[in-house]
Amino acid sequence: MKDIEIAQQNKMNKITDVAEKIGLKPDEIEQYGTYKAKIKLPVTAKTKTKGKLILVTAINPTPAGEGKSTVTVGLGDAFSLLKKKVMIALREPSLGPVMGMKGGATGGGFSQVVPMEDINLHFTGDMHALTTANNTLAALVDNHIYQGNKLHIDQRRVIWKRVLDINDRALRHVVIGIGGVTQGIPREDGFDITVASELMAILCLAEDIADLKKRIGQIVVGYTTAKEPVTVDQLGVTGAIALLLKDAIKPNLVQTLAHTPAIIHGGPFANIAHGCNSVLATQTALKLADYTLTEAGFGADLGAEKFMDIKTPVLGKTPDTVVIVATVRALKMHGGVAKNELEEENLAALQKGYVNLQKHIASMKRYNVPVVVAINQFTSDTEAELAKLQQLCADDKTTAVVADVWGKGGAGAVELAKKVLETCEQDNEFAPLYAADDELETKIEKIVTEIYGGAKVEYGVKAKRQLKRFKELGWDRLPVCMAKTQYSLSDNAKFLGAPKDFTIHVREFMPKLGAQFIVALTGNVLTMPGLPKVPAANGMELSDDGTISGLY
Amino acid sequence: MKDIEIAQQNKMNKITDVAEKIGLKPDEIEQYGTYKAKIKLPVTAKTKTKGKLILVTAINPTPAGEGKSTVTVGLGDAFSLLKKKVMIALREPSLGPVMGMKGGATGGGFSQVVPMEDINLHFTGDMHALTTANNTLAALVDNHIYQGNKLHIDQRRVIWKRVLDINDRALRHVVIGIGGVTQGIPREDGFDITVASELMAILCLAEDIADLKKRIGQIVVGYTTAKEPVTVDQLGVTGAIALLLKDAIKPNLVQTLAHTPAIIHGGPFANIAHGCNSVLATQTALKLADYTLTEAGFGADLGAEKFMDIKTPVLGKTPDTVVIVATVRALKMHGGVAKNELEEENLAALQKGYVNLQKHIASMKRYNVPVVVAINQFTSDTEAELAKLQQLCADDKTTAVVADVWGKGGAGAVELAKKVLETCEQDNEFAPLYAADDELETKIEKIVTEIYGGAKVEYGVKAKRQLKRFKELGWDRLPVCMAKTQYSLSDNAKFLGAPKDFTIHVREFMPKLGAQFIVALTGNVLTMPGLPKVPAANGMELSDDGTISGLY
Repeated sequence: MKDIEIAQQNKMNKITDVAEKIGLKPDEIEQYGTYKAKIKLPVTAKTKTKGKLILVTAINPTPAGEGKSTVTVGLGDAFSLLKKKVMIALREPSLGPVMGMKGGATGGGFSQVVPMEDINLHFTGDMHALTTANNTLAALVDNHIYQGNKLHIDQRRVIWKRVLDINDRALRHVVIGIGGVTQGIPREDGFDITVASELMAILCLAEDIADLKKRIGQIVVGYTTAKEPVTVDQLGVTGAIALLLKDAIKPNLVQTLAHTPAIIHGGPFANIAHGCNSVLATQTALKLADYTLTEAGFGADLGAEKFMDIKTPVLGKTPDTVVIVATVRALKMHGGVAKNELEEENLAALQKGYVNLQKHIASMKRYNVPVVVAINQFTSDTEAELAKLQQLCADDKTTAVVADVWGKGGAGAVELAKKVLETCEQDNEFAPLYAADDELETKIEKIVTEIYGGAKVEYGVKAKRQLKRFKELGWDRLPVCMAKTQYSLSDNAKFLGAPKDFTIHVREFMPKLGAQFIVALTGNVLTMPGLPKVPAANGMELSDDGTISGLY
Repeated sequence: MKDIEIAQQNKMNKITDVAEKIGLKPDEIEQYGTYKAKIKLPVTAKTKTKGKLILVTAINPTPAGEGKSTVTVGLGDAFSLLKKKVMIALREPSLGPVMGMKGGATGGGFSQVVPMEDINLHFTGDMHALTTANNTLAALVDNHIYQGNKLHIDQRRVIWKRVLDINDRALRHVVIGIGGVTQGIPREDGFDITVASELMAILCLAEDIADLKKRIGQIVVGYTTAKEPVTVDQLGVTGAIALLLKDAIKPNLVQTLAHTPAIIHGGPFANIAHGCNSVLATQTALKLADYTLTEAGFGADLGAEKFMDIKTPVLGKTPDTVVIVATVRALKMHGGVAKNELEEENLAALQKGYVNLQKHIASMKRYNVPVVVAINQFTSDTEAELAKLQQLCADDKTTAVVADVWGKGGAGAVELAKKVLETCEQDNEFAPLYAADDELETKIEKIVTEIYGGAKVEYGVKAKRQLKRFKELGWDRLPVCMAKTQYSLSDNAKFLGAPKDFTIHVREFMPKLGAQFIVALTGNVLTMPGLPKVPAANGMELSDDGTISGLY
């Protein structure tokens, strides 16, 4: 049965009932239809909370699939089965990939958040608000240049790009403002996908509305002809951009198939941004529930590192347990098996590929938090493979629990949940990777050597020049956000498993003064995906009564 | 007091109460917060209704302002005061002009629809859904060309443009797909504002979901190298585009300051499209209420003509009364007075400018529907001017009633409402301007001579070539949608009043096979506005508690 069919056959509870279950009164939410709501901001990042926090992360992704969201949802439902007061906090899907290839991002099988069609399409409009705010700012920048350019913005040095929540390769590189003197000032530009907008990162790191405005005001949109940064505050439009996000900043409440309350809010890229749902979403869950399950994007080297080093300082709360999701199939790929040979048992390849998981276990333990491995079971996994993987983890003093969340929902993750409940009671003193006032180079070196397992860092000509300039501008001690391939611990997507002695090449930096981090680009990072030869859109239908099919 | 302050000080009823008042049960609406809702489609264009329909239109707009929406809202509230079961149906505002110059489009003073901030910003996401659907289709077209171009689309003949709901002149003319072989196929392109998208016109003319899909499938996105039209059905993505509009097609319910229920749904341009709210919105109001007040864009020559000739054949209902809004100030401008001299009494200029109103009265009577003139009172109007204008109308056998809707809300329009109630009881046999199977040239000639008061039509070289081709394609008997300046009855914005003996120059046609009309372009029509030197955005603020100011 297809995911959408499972979701459509499921009977949802009214969102007012879901809200009530976690202690939210009807006037504390704003309904968006019968099954979605926004939570009126009950918290700020400064609100004291007592809930336990469980971070779900994964090995480096492979085409075999890991099912991180599916495990997060299934684990949440298992907590519900164990009568625990639990909430799930996830990122919002981007519409571009839904129409392209990836399909939805709402879990799968019997571990899904619903209504899946709405969540994967327009949801409560957060992405659209971000797109609009981003592009309104872009139009205001170009208009400023066109209308006399009082701030002396150099049109060749505008760094604020436009965005669409669409996979559209034709917009990656464009020339705008052509057609004559009344049509603007010609310049090169480009579109990113909306989740790559700095505003998305800002929305996800803002402590409250005041902080949202502060961060928006600090955004650097470009440089003057004298190469000085130009901010949104200087343009005088901070208020206008902020008010376009007045509703988007409120966390969205939905539910799982088993009616576990879930907050789905914010979804920044995990390469050029920090890849976690909003601080306000996590904080809201921590306040309302005893246990909050949240996930970070891509593998632990990208998503979890950023969760630890960028998000937790704002959140003021570190994880009580880290769950690392792995599959036998994916580890076999890390061990060198081709995708079409994954169905066959291969203990040698599993052992060989295990090094990838092993490295992530060590990296997470580096932060001094308890680690549990979740083996997301696929039908092709053999008993021997599952046992082997558990043994390999045990040899590294780590518990690995098999979970069948796709096929059984929460019931397939009860053992895993029990283990996580246990580890959450352990005392742990979080050990940060770097100090807030370390220099950029120090921060990058620590990430590369301690989290990626690399040997050293090399900076390109442009990156070196920028480091010098950042020191002058006082931008040299911000958190660093690594933009690296998600497929490898190194910066080469082909190096699977756990490569050693590699060098990370930092080509260029992208200052994100609103998000308050500096992105370090290693290699080319695609910030606007393209559509495949046969897009998913070609299989989608809307029936005359409004029912959707062909959405995965 | 500013409009937004009046709106914010007003106490709204819960939208569930507003819905109940017109007989909609809680499960017949979908709440969007406490004060907005979507109405689950209770009707199709085929549903039998018994309500009376009042169309509000106006003289040709001038910088003095006419206040058509304000009169519509005030008149609705006056119907409520008279204990009539009434609904208002208006267009949705576009966000671009809100950030630019125009301000909101939700009425003014004590005649507003609320919550005005939400309606003027993201509202229920309809504009964003349309933007997304439009641009997803654009990406699919470019992707088709990039991925082998099975349909042989000529990239120089793609006519499907991208859109944003933003005033952004720099996007009017762009070059896309540059940057190398993996970045698409280079071609010239351009962005329109979202309300100019054919999908907006389609949404507003669709009879139901089945008709929506049919229309989307018929959209011509471009031509092959052999100059044959290429449709969305041929691309195989009709379902995907339709499902992006599954919620946008549902009418939105809000209220006036005086709690009169109002549907605000759809807002196509009134030049390159037909300029009326959706058929489904009007139809829903006609079913739920005894009296439905709706408006058409710009002056009666553009908006009302299209209401009569394009919308009513789909709606299956013609107006029981047409209200033409005029102001003393605007008529004085039509009579040659400069904007800074409008405060002074000038009976001669009023009489001179009256010809504009006179022509619109005659045009509307051409359709054989009762006409009432609403004189929207401004504080600078003198008693003598108001009396003079009423007398001029009386000489043309037309009742003109003074209304002070800005200052007094519904109470300022009770006399007007009584007159309209009276005319709605008159028998009238609607007289269409042209027959459905008239040829394009015949339709245009009738519009130009009978509605604009022009002498003849001239076709440019391209237009003549297109007319020939349209006959081959069987597109030569569709309704015509005139794209003309809104400021004059002629195609020259400077000819105020009621110009005579003029020629209308049709430069080019734009076939809209989904909307099922052919746009005739006279002169340059701006489909992507620009921002002014000091955009409205620069005065907007969001307070730390989420309150908006600086929005008009």
